[in-house]
Amino acid sequence: MNLILLFPEDFVEPHRARLAGRRLAHVRDTHRAAIGDALTVGLLAGPIGTGIVTRLDEDVLEMEVTLIQPPPPKLPLTLVLALPRPKVLNRVLASATSLGVRQIHLINAWKVEKSYWKSPRMAEENLMHQRLLGLEQAKDTVLPELHLHRLFRPFVEDQLPGITQGTLALVGHPGAVEPCPRQTEGPVTLAVGPEGGWIASELESLTAVGFRPVDLGPRILRTETAVAALVGRLF
Amino acid sequence: MNLILLFPEDFVEPHRARLAGRRLAHVRDTHRAAIGDALTVGLLAGPIGTGIVTRLDEDVLEMEVTLIQPPPPKLPLTLVLALPRPKVLNRVLASATSLGVRQIHLINAWKVEKSYWKSPRMAEENLMHQRLLGLEQAKDTVLPELHLHRLFRPFVEDQLPGITQGTLALVGHPGAVEPCPRQTEGPVTLAVGPEGGWIASELESLTAVGFRPVDLGPRILRTETAVAALVGRLF
Repeated sequence: MNLILLFPEDFVEPHRARLAGRRLAHVRDTHRAAIGDALTVGLLAGPIGTGIVTRLDEDVLEMEVTLIQPPPPKLPLTLVLALPRPKVLNRVLASATSLGVRQIHLINAWKVEKSYWKSPRMAEENLMHQRLLGLEQAKDTVLPELHLHRLFRPFVEDQLPGITQGTLALVGHPGAVEPCPRQTEGPVTLAVGPEGGWIASELESLTAVGFRPVDLGPRILRTETAVAALVGRLF
Repeated sequence: MNLILLFPEDFVEPHRARLAGRRLAHVRDTHRAAIGDALTVGLLAGPIGTGIVTRLDEDVLEMEVTLIQPPPPKLPLTLVLALPRPKVLNRVLASATSLGVRQIHLINAWKVEKSYWKSPRMAEENLMHQRLLGLEQAKDTVLPELHLHRLFRPFVEDQLPGITQGTLALVGHPGAVEPCPRQTEGPVTLAVGPEGGWIASELESLTAVGFRPVDLGPRILRTETAVAALVGRLF
């Protein structure tokens, strides 16, 4: 937790916020904060700044908050991810958020097991929690948008053309002739397949709406590793 | 497990290997392999190829093995990592291995908690297991070398100059004037600090032996995310 996220409801006065629960426990036990300490804080979807601890006991921490800086800029990147295994999903959401991805679409694909959609980790609360962890990690305050699409074809045909408009649309595909470009200038939409890859008809649907298949090298990487490596390469 | 790693002791005849334990369970339950199926296999530190399943029951799987291709090339990258938290360590080892890092040095730093060195995850067996998982993920067979250094200064002063010789030596440091370079040509030694960063004297020791401090952007990333993003950027 490199930044403590504050929510409007934490404010008991315009510049005074009160923490309880997970954030209080973390500040007390991991940061070992004391009265007078200055903590890095940020208002969800707002500026970042400093909180000076003015009260600290078992149940509550209060701080005087000064918010002055904008959060770090987002990457001009929209991720279209075949829904990963539940165990991987949490890490992908937190790490993509920490990297500054602007928008995430989790979609179905032939090689996505149906059970993944029914995992408890797909609960709205968890999808939010993982993204909040990513913000706290990266000192950011702006959640990436997250959208779920249970049906591949309607999403690709009806919605994806609008999403990719004005962006470089790339789909990772082992064995593609073109290697993934580097250091692109403008916005990018990047589609990353399931562990077993896209099937031929999925790849056709994606190229039909303008995606260029790009090769990511001879190594098959886990989704969260692949996303981070691609972000490093593209931006 | 995109590649099944074989060890010399698996071979009951020159081209016949026998699996048991974790690999058997995985091939049976996840790959749902049947007799006649062709599996991607590789010999530890050797070539990769195909194994045709010739026998499969509760306790044992046998395959006819043909090994023909070299494993994917390694990156010319040596990582010098301040020992991360045990929970993070496993993921860093597996993902750095999957990315093709050639050599990993885990070192001490002021902000590395002493308890990390005593974690059960530091057992030789686990350090090997995580790297094997990375090889299986990336269809590689060659383990990255792994070295542990409990003392920062002797390692940096006595050993690091030899390690960095002929390489571009970079140390990640938030706020450094120079941004991390892109698409380098030759070999790189990359030092990544602990979660709280390097202290001033550590940074001085590293620059004294030729490391250039480079900034990695305004976002603080978890070690495994940072390493993957840096690999994408550098190579």
